[in-house]
Amino acid sequence: MAKRNFRELLGRQWDQGKFLCVGLDSDLEKIPVSVRTGDAGQTIFAFNRSLVDATYDLVGAYKLNSAFYEAHGDGRFTALRETILHIKKVAPDVPVILDAKRADIGNTNAGYVESMFGYLDVDAITVHPYMGRESLQPFLDHGGKGIFVLCRTSNPGAGEFQDLEIEGQPLYQVVAQHVAHEWNTAGNCGLVVGATYPEELGAVRKIAPDMPILIPGIGAQHGDLAKCVAAAKNAQGRGFIIAIARAIIFASSGADYAEAARRSAQTFDGEIRKLM
Amino acid sequence: MAKRNFRELLGRQWDQGKFLCVGLDSDLEKIPVSVRTGDAGQTIFAFNRSLVDATYDLVGAYKLNSAFYEAHGDGRFTALRETILHIKKVAPDVPVILDAKRADIGNTNAGYVESMFGYLDVDAITVHPYMGRESLQPFLDHGGKGIFVLCRTSNPGAGEFQDLEIEGQPLYQVVAQHVAHEWNTAGNCGLVVGATYPEELGAVRKIAPDMPILIPGIGAQHGDLAKCVAAAKNAQGRGFIIAIARAIIFASSGADYAEAARRSAQTFDGEIRKLM
Repeated sequence: MAKRNFRELLGRQWDQGKFLCVGLDSDLEKIPVSVRTGDAGQTIFAFNRSLVDATYDLVGAYKLNSAFYEAHGDGRFTALRETILHIKKVAPDVPVILDAKRADIGNTNAGYVESMFGYLDVDAITVHPYMGRESLQPFLDHGGKGIFVLCRTSNPGAGEFQDLEIEGQPLYQVVAQHVAHEWNTAGNCGLVVGATYPEELGAVRKIAPDMPILIPGIGAQHGDLAKCVAAAKNAQGRGFIIAIARAIIFASSGADYAEAARRSAQTFDGEIRKLM
Repeated sequence: MAKRNFRELLGRQWDQGKFLCVGLDSDLEKIPVSVRTGDAGQTIFAFNRSLVDATYDLVGAYKLNSAFYEAHGDGRFTALRETILHIKKVAPDVPVILDAKRADIGNTNAGYVESMFGYLDVDAITVHPYMGRESLQPFLDHGGKGIFVLCRTSNPGAGEFQDLEIEGQPLYQVVAQHVAHEWNTAGNCGLVVGATYPEELGAVRKIAPDMPILIPGIGAQHGDLAKCVAAAKNAQGRGFIIAIARAIIFASSGADYAEAARRSAQTFDGEIRKLM
């Protein structure tokens, strides 16, 4: 089997017009009662498996946020690994992004690299930029993996530091410039820009004309899809991933959650296709 | 049993002149062969237990970097939890810091909060500042827990963004100001400043006269202890934690590693006491 390469996998998804990424942010508290067993790990995995089975032909990527799988002594982390294995089995061409937002000093990142790129074997991760490129080199050195650097995050208070101006340019744009012009020597970098900030998204696209942009914040966070797609498209009419979690995976709180998730994913996919 | 409070625990350690924090960065590859069993989790826990038993009367805190305990399918994470439980058993007055460097959007951080403050029940954590205070509120709301915000990190490339000037002031100082004046309403915030940057440490102390500063980078990273202590001391001659990992826990690669760790810890503790 050829080694998986994130950019190649993603490129093939874009070839098929697939820009939607389903975020499996599977908060145990919100999982429909019909799925629940006494076991948290089993419950989360059963929920995720049904969602993947119901959506894999529609999506260009899956994203799992590690916060929902952190160990509480109840098998949540096992559900994370099982979900990744299940995606690779039923949809081997769909890349898997782990939204882990990690970053430590260089030698220490090796532990995260082994866990994420070895044990979990995800295709891409998200990282914090604050410690600089030198600290992230152990991630960046994995040319086949996608490294999405937080640039302009989707939260309401994102601007506290990200909008501070450095010689007239906000920090998030400086981050985008460094990543585009200095960090991306292996061609594996991307940027995270929240859908809640479409103007900033446009500014980032100008700075990084060809870099993949991961865009959370559509759906529950009320980002504007049309503005985002217009701002994020590159010269080839591609280059972005729209990540939607709650509005798809919790579209119904009933036993029909998987069908409801499929309908919601179809709606979003259709909306994106109309904008292309 | 009274609820543990990080600042109270730390204050009692400072009362006893204890400023040394042993970093249990227990890289499996570096653990002496004499400790190794076939099982990674058992090996790491046996190593940590001996180190804790050999040092707990000397130290003011323990710090565990989560990167060394990330799941690789081999019980590493279990070793993290067992180590924390062991520290609380043999040294219930010594606070435990989890160096996890996390940060996500607000509602998502709840998963990290449950894992770190619930399941693992550590006394303090480290977080990235990039997403702003609003995103970190779920951590900050835990008044009894210490929240150490990365300010000036110890790695060689730390300055890439941290030294960028905003109206004449470097970003790391702006972060220190925001944390000191806006984030710290529950009195539970601290800052991380690398020992490799003693001048920056002094600048941060001026900005945050009373906030605890966690200082990694002495030992293997060659920070200057005398300069750091001079720069970090607050008006009461306290207010900091010197975190040393490799130079203590890997002081010997032989079967005498625990005794060697104790001697190394005694040496560092003695050096710090001479500087007070």
